[in-house]
Amino acid sequence: GTDTKIGLVDVNQKLLASAVIPTEAGTGAEAVIKRIGEAVLALLDREKIPMDQCIGVGVGVPGTVNRKTGTVVYSNNIAWEQVPLVQLLSVYLPVPIQIANDADCAALGEAASGAARDYQDVVMLTLGTGVGGGIILDGKIYEGGRMGGCELGHMVIVENGEPCTCGRRGCLEAYASATALRKVSEKKLGKTMEPDEIFWLAGEGDEIAKEIVADYISKLGTGIVNIINIFRPQALLLGGGIAAQGEVLLAPIREMVKTGCFGGIHGELPEIRTAELGNRAGMIGAANLV
Amino acid sequence: GTDTKIGLVDVNQKLLASAVIPTEAGTGAEAVIKRIGEAVLALLDREKIPMDQCIGVGVGVPGTVNRKTGTVVYSNNIAWEQVPLVQLLSVYLPVPIQIANDADCAALGEAASGAARDYQDVVMLTLGTGVGGGIILDGKIYEGGRMGGCELGHMVIVENGEPCTCGRRGCLEAYASATALRKVSEKKLGKTMEPDEIFWLAGEGDEIAKEIVADYISKLGTGIVNIINIFRPQALLLGGGIAAQGEVLLAPIREMVKTGCFGGIHGELPEIRTAELGNRAGMIGAANLV
Repeated sequence: GTDTKIGLVDVNQKLLASAVIPTEAGTGAEAVIKRIGEAVLALLDREKIPMDQCIGVGVGVPGTVNRKTGTVVYSNNIAWEQVPLVQLLSVYLPVPIQIANDADCAALGEAASGAARDYQDVVMLTLGTGVGGGIILDGKIYEGGRMGGCELGHMVIVENGEPCTCGRRGCLEAYASATALRKVSEKKLGKTMEPDEIFWLAGEGDEIAKEIVADYISKLGTGIVNIINIFRPQALLLGGGIAAQGEVLLAPIREMVKTGCFGGIHGELPEIRTAELGNRAGMIGAANLV
Repeated sequence: GTDTKIGLVDVNQKLLASAVIPTEAGTGAEAVIKRIGEAVLALLDREKIPMDQCIGVGVGVPGTVNRKTGTVVYSNNIAWEQVPLVQLLSVYLPVPIQIANDADCAALGEAASGAARDYQDVVMLTLGTGVGGGIILDGKIYEGGRMGGCELGHMVIVENGEPCTCGRRGCLEAYASATALRKVSEKKLGKTMEPDEIFWLAGEGDEIAKEIVADYISKLGTGIVNIINIFRPQALLLGGGIAAQGEVLLAPIREMVKTGCFGGIHGELPEIRTAELGNRAGMIGAANLV
């Protein structure tokens, strides 16, 4: 939303060069798209890549897109509604252009050349301000029917539980997001703490922090087992800031997956890993759209 | 499991004729498959359809199948493990043979010519002894990765809730199955009652029965909204014995879907209907595999 990242990716999934420009969404869709188009041209120029060597352009958008028509249906982050992005960007970039949701792009990037590069069926959960998800089936983005689906964070796991931004109560997002951890720290530790501070405090042996972390992992694991029972992917990746906790998070979740998934260890269980491309995932994934 | 239903389906999805034979799983896979092959030949003979007019044979199996190899990986109901069904049945029926899970076949049948015949993206939830599901995406069965997925009934909606047959607690199945209703009637009404008796009693104004039904609908609706948030199908069908309650069940669930789904009424909401093909769904769906 705030910045637009532009990357030059080769056919071997390598990020050759990149640039970041402020999105300045307030200037309106046409002005934003003009700046993006010009920044792409400038990057190609800087890297001495002629346009005819460019196979195409992929764009990850923080919102709901219609991939078939190339339209951004709605984006809360940048306040866009029914913006014909592909059409408008084509004016500047005369190559095939594809768009997709940015979380889906990140998942696609990890499946193409990141932590899930050996797999075709991948679920990526992003633990950030909210809980987002991207699903890759047979190497392609699965976005749910009619552009509106795959809200993995908005799965109730605790009936009548904590209020969620979506209006329901007890969604995975209401427990597994950074926002949720901040709230619970305020309530139980008396001050608003960042997720990494809470995990650090738990590592130091603080009983309340340990309790918060244990409950966090339990709720996240419940959601992950639910998701595996539905998609049975080959790999499930955790991304976003909280995923940086690594094995502290992954080890107990692997145990929950082993004992909780339908069929237990007799079922084929996915690899549980952290995403590894960070900010590059979205750019590499977007490049894989074309 | 108990019986094997055999149907003759034409290219217009019409069930021209059918037969039922006891499965007698105890006689072993080869004997069962021989009887099925012979019964298909007898049905074709009875209906005067020569084999060369038969495009193929589809088989719905109560268990996990590998559709690519034509093998029944595992069936608890008929105690099969790694049975090369397509290969064995080909001996009797020299036409293309396809297999799939029986719940998936039922969903495919409803999508082909039943309650969801106008739609390509369909989720069917079967409310029976357990809670099963079938998912149709783009008109085709989606069975989850690696044959093990799409256990829609085994999604925890109540953390640390009622014990489920899968080993976890609080799964949708532990609330929305007929088994769950029987259990709760025993506990709250003092005797084990069938779902239709409980719904009847609630309709008569019995306060406890009304409470049981309200809770049933609330839990089922929570699961349904979770599923819609993930797949955003065009139609969500309810099948199985409890679905016979019709509007008593559908009307409040439609309300939950309207208010609970991500994006609310701004999202595209699916039709919520009961399945309409009953026992024919599986046969018609299986026929659609070929």
